[in-house]
Amino acid sequence: MPDLLAEARQELATANRVLANEGVLDAFGHISMRHPTNPDRYLISRYGAAELMMPADILELTLDSKPVVPTGARLFSELVIHGAIYQARPDVHSVCHHHATPVLPYCITGVELVPVMHLGAALGGKVPFWDSRDEFGDTPLVVTKPQEGASLARALGPHWMVLLRRHGATLAGRSLRECVFRSIYTCRNAELQSRAMGIGSISTLSDGEAEMCSQHSLTPRTLSRVWEYWTFRLAKVEAMTAAGAGTKPAAAKVAAKTPAKASARRGKPAKRTAAPPARKAKRAKKR
Amino acid sequence: MPDLLAEARQELATANRVLANEGVLDAFGHISMRHPTNPDRYLISRYGAAELMMPADILELTLDSKPVVPTGARLFSELVIHGAIYQARPDVHSVCHHHATPVLPYCITGVELVPVMHLGAALGGKVPFWDSRDEFGDTPLVVTKPQEGASLARALGPHWMVLLRRHGATLAGRSLRECVFRSIYTCRNAELQSRAMGIGSISTLSDGEAEMCSQHSLTPRTLSRVWEYWTFRLAKVEAMTAAGAGTKPAAAKVAAKTPAKASARRGKPAKRTAAPPARKAKRAKKR
Amino acid sequence: MPDLLAEARQELATANRVLANEGVLDAFGHISMRHPTNPDRYLISRYGAAELMMPADILELTLDSKPVVPTGARLFSELVIHGAIYQARPDVHSVCHHHATPVLPYCITGVELVPVMHLGAALGGKVPFWDSRDEFGDTPLVVTKPQEGASLARALGPHWMVLLRRHGATLAGRSLRECVFRSIYTCRNAELQSRAMGIGSISTLSDGEAEMCSQHSLTPRTLSRVWEYWTFRLAKVEAMTAAGAGTKPAAAKVAAKTPAKASARRGKPAKRTAAPPARKAKRAKKR
Amino acid sequence: MPDLLAEARQELATANRVLANEGVLDAFGHISMRHPTNPDRYLISRYGAAELMMPADILELTLDSKPVVPTGARLFSELVIHGAIYQARPDVHSVCHHHATPVLPYCITGVELVPVMHLGAALGGKVPFWDSRDEFGDTPLVVTKPQEGASLARALGPHWMVLLRRHGATLAGRSLRECVFRSIYTCRNAELQSRAMGIGSISTLSDGEAEMCSQHSLTPRTLSRVWEYWTFRLAKVEAMTAAGAGTKPAAAKVAAKTPAKASARRGKPAKRTAAPPARKAKRAKKR
Repeated sequence: MPDLLAEARQELATANRVLANEGVLDAFGHISMRHPTNPDRYLISRYGAAELMMPADILELTLDSKPVVPTGARLFSELVIHGAIYQARPDVHSVCHHHATPVLPYCITGVELVPVMHLGAALGGKVPFWDSRDEFGDTPLVVTKPQEGASLARALGPHWMVLLRRHGATLAGRSLRECVFRSIYTCRNAELQSRAMGIGSISTLSDGEAEMCSQHSLTPRTLSRVWEYWTFRLAKVEAMTAAGAGTKPAAAKVAAKTPAKASARRGKPAKRTAAPPARKAKRAKKR
Repeated sequence: MPDLLAEARQELATANRVLANEGVLDAFGHISMRHPTNPDRYLISRYGAAELMMPADILELTLDSKPVVPTGARLFSELVIHGAIYQARPDVHSVCHHHATPVLPYCITGVELVPVMHLGAALGGKVPFWDSRDEFGDTPLVVTKPQEGASLARALGPHWMVLLRRHGATLAGRSLRECVFRSIYTCRNAELQSRAMGIGSISTLSDGEAEMCSQHSLTPRTLSRVWEYWTFRLAKVEAMTAAGAGTKPAAAKVAAKTPAKASARRGKPAKRTAAPPARKAKRAKKR
Repeated sequence: MPDLLAEARQELATANRVLANEGVLDAFGHISMRHPTNPDRYLISRYGAAELMMPADILELTLDSKPVVPTGARLFSELVIHGAIYQARPDVHSVCHHHATPVLPYCITGVELVPVMHLGAALGGKVPFWDSRDEFGDTPLVVTKPQEGASLARALGPHWMVLLRRHGATLAGRSLRECVFRSIYTCRNAELQSRAMGIGSISTLSDGEAEMCSQHSLTPRTLSRVWEYWTFRLAKVEAMTAAGAGTKPAAAKVAAKTPAKASARRGKPAKRTAAPPARKAKRAKKR
Repeated sequence: MPDLLAEARQELATANRVLANEGVLDAFGHISMRHPTNPDRYLISRYGAAELMMPADILELTLDSKPVVPTGARLFSELVIHGAIYQARPDVHSVCHHHATPVLPYCITGVELVPVMHLGAALGGKVPFWDSRDEFGDTPLVVTKPQEGASLARALGPHWMVLLRRHGATLAGRSLRECVFRSIYTCRNAELQSRAMGIGSISTLSDGEAEMCSQHSLTPRTLSRVWEYWTFRLAKVEAMTAAGAGTKPAAAKVAAKTPAKASARRGKPAKRTAAPPARKAKRAKKR
């Protein structure tokens, strides 16, 4: 069991840095995952920017968003977003909350976010809005109270993404990788929808297309392809930084491991194909 | 013969990473080239993101998109796009399929993409649309069946670029470098057309201008200039990454070789002019 | 006393480079802070781009914007902006003047800048305009005369940000970090407001929301989170550069120090969590 | 005399790479300067992308755009743009021709480019249009014939910038640095004008303001500030790249030299202030 938890911590730390590297999370925003073996707990980083998070920064919380082990670490004030959704939705295994630039205009205007290209079908159907003002009046907009979290979870309902008016977006996934995929491609869909609205009238996927596209994108095959790509890009950036400081790149290990496993599953050695610099470096060290 | 094939693999792997580095390909999209000596085959990378592709990742396929040699590698599900176009168009030696941000708004709105500046004439005349829904109804939008590939090839007709509604773009070229040029400069033309539409009414090249501009851009002289530039930029990025991981930069060899050859052709040594860091490094190692 | 001043110089130099790295300052623009122990003086860099500034570049000026110690260094011609605001507003401890891309369209059109998301409430309420032409007629637009500085300070009044028509923005803060936060998040709010206006009608925070959001953002807790993030990012960029030149990264010391202190305050060692490469390098050297 | 020429070559090569690094030049476009001692000649790089150009790539041409010394190097096909302007305008000492993204929408729409902020006054007053179609009918749009160059020079007239319909921009300066400044800040002004038009009605500088702003920006003081900044940024990027390849960064020497000289002029040692990593590296090597 401890192994699965250690793997989950590493994967979640990597997801944090991937989402930072791909422009979804910045100083603010967070991603969590349900505990790999205990569905009554979830994992999330300490308070701080996603770009900084390493496995040791990942904490374990109950679904009431209390630390399982007492900690001196600071916690996010919006933990209830995560806890409330895990409570309401047993099918959800990962939650992301962000304020990414391409999506915010929809939170500000109330314009509906719709799938405009096949990969954007990761929106997962209708994207409802939640306005904290409706139920709670004037607040600091951040979702910090259990009843606010519960209200937001109700607004999400059976969907996969909800827009918070004048604030940001909250997304869910059946797995961490699905949630990362949805977070990145709904940003991209939003960017394309806005650009398309700037030059003409948009057409959207039919319901049938959206459903089929979403299924096509969220297979293990596609999710492992994008994960290989995102961790490769992260490893490159972290290798550059490490060069200056004379340390080992942080993502190297993760990147080295992930595609290797993926390759093993598809029956061919990863070493011969597209070895990213960081992976090579690691192998070199082993010899 | 094996030499020409090895060169083609290397050139195609470089084209993959150039298109990633210039923002045309990301986690998705692919570029292929016809086999250098056997017109009944084509080369394309294994399944995965273009940014990762090395010569060893390049596979050989029949025009029915079957691997010539059995392989454990995963293949793209949209191979038929390439095979169908090579079958329909003997003059085509390279095909690229992508979902780049500047072009997608045209796929979403159906607004016509037109040449708005001299380099944008690489569009190659009219850019037709293809809507999978017309012939096949609701699908996952990806082009995976032979009849879908054939339909797309018919829509392309004698043109050089076709837009797939709610999906992306497919381009062809008489050579790999022409296809890379067209892929990059049609993105740039699309970006400029959108920005121009944001401030006023656009004017377009006349048919005569478009024809002459296209001929001017697609000479070996211009194509070798841009290739020198793109591989130089790629070599710089790959050198940065390699610095962190202590490995040799992947593109260095290619970049070192390409401009050197180009210089030889124009009768002066490349070594004295604009030696990119990566090239210097290679020479240093030889001494 | 000398210690507080040395810390202030270092913090201000870091703030200069953070604002350059986050895209607020470029070749032009400047940030100052009130002297940590003598409210009749302020600190600001020598003439030059923020990206270059180190602690030794920080000069000490009277509130009349005269150097306390004679210096051969060149001074900004717009120092009066800073001096005039420190004179008029004892509650202000830091002033930033910039021409950042997202904010300038508001200076050009006179469209009102309003809070469209919770973090944008850092605008601090109403953002007045100042047009140098109203009082001074045709000028080179730069604010170089004492009476121009005084006029601008009057336009700022009790607010925290003022827009200079056809020129740029000037912001104030109760502390250096608050001023950096306001500078970055008003740019972001402006970017989002413009993008939202491109797709629909914007909604804004209510006055009550704006007040509560602003209070929530400008706590020491949030300010230390963003400072940790921005200095981490700066340290990474400076580490990359230093790699090429074989020197120690400039921001490493600062970055190493800041989160460590923050962690100490919250009762856990920084070393185990999210150690940025640059920090690791520094520790390695100590051993 | 040979010294002045060597300095000019180095400065022009640096200007090439600065304009590439700041996003004005890419695979295409070029900048030239009049010969420092012989007004009947000018200097420009060999055919190729600006980002690659080193002092050895700089060639010497007559005002008829013929190489002074026979060369095997390829030449730009649009040299006449430069030659024709130097012939028509003895006050011009540098010419830049580019197709930068922010400016092209004005070439495509014919919307007038006007100064919308103080630094944008570098436009230098009215910006005329030139349409090759008016006089020459359908052409490949590139300006390659002497009579086309002469026609463009007439369109420029006494101004400092001319927009080529469906093509790009050509700018002139009284010095190389003035031309670089104008090239960068007219791009920035164009970007801001477009963004401002997206949210409201733009206001422009009055003629008096524009004249005073332009004079304020084009002093040696301001030009040396921006040059220090741009070469510092270039040195950082080139240091990063060199790190990977194990070579000395190309721009280091230039960057080291330029601010040192500027500092000397203002009476204080450059070494103590804002030493860019690359400079430090150079000093380190000397010891």
